[in-house]
Amino acid sequence: MNISHIEHIGIAVKNLTEAIPYYENVLGLKCYNIEEVVDQKVKTAFFKVGGTKIELLEPTSPESAVAKFIEKKGEGIHHIAFAVDSVAAALSDAENKGIQLIDHAPRGGAEGLSIAFLHPKSTLGILTELCEYPK
Amino acid sequence: MNISHIEHIGIAVKNLTEAIPYYENVLGLKCYNIEEVVDQKVKTAFFKVGGTKIELLEPTSPESAVAKFIEKKGEGIHHIAFAVDSVAAALSDAENKGIQLIDHAPRGGAEGLSIAFLHPKSTLGILTELCEYPK
Repeated sequence: MNISHIEHIGIAVKNLTEAIPYYENVLGLKCYNIEEVVDQKVKTAFFKVGGTKIELLEPTSPESAVAKFIEKKGEGIHHIAFAVDSVAAALSDAENKGIQLIDHAPRGGAEGLSIAFLHPKSTLGILTELCEYPK
Repeated sequence: MNISHIEHIGIAVKNLTEAIPYYENVLGLKCYNIEEVVDQKVKTAFFKVGGTKIELLEPTSPESAVAKFIEKKGEGIHHIAFAVDSVAAALSDAENKGIQLIDHAPRGGAEGLSIAFLHPKSTLGILTELCEYPK
């Protein structure tokens, strides 16, 4: 697949209201967008860092995958997202190389991107997102 | 502190020989450097991705912090490294804001950088590295 850059790093936090001040006041980054992604049951906060982004993820329900992640592993890095030209082509390429997919077709993510996830069982333990910008 | 970009993402792997083919053949990235960091008891492999890097970390000893990380949490994202103008100034700034430091002064890291780590207890669960390029 043709990865141009790391689109974002997804970080699981219990509470955006407590996490944003750390990113702003200690790291000196600026939160430029807060957005709820209803189908993933998360509220997200975005920070630009050079050519990539940090996406904080606060679960909005105990059934959210992010809530379960925090329960099992604590707060921390939840996923890494790579920007590709075509998520559909990248999924097909990954599947042909024996990678287990979570999503078999692109779906809508935060910030208007098309996204899909690869399973951490096939990616050396890292939940891996592929992202495509709207054309 | 004044962060310019994410310098790299550190990923703990059991074995570089098994991990590098995933990054090269599936993700399509190119390993451009393999380097041992003796005082951290790791062998590292680097890949450029847009303006940042992925650093794979294979422990060279069971006493390596990376070996203990893998034992406890499995393979996965180990740390995030931010590039700053001055690690010394960033450490002082972080300490003044109540952040627990692992390193109280910059030390040598891979690729000739000066580095220091902030403790994950103070950074919402994320082992956080600060990096400064040689002047």
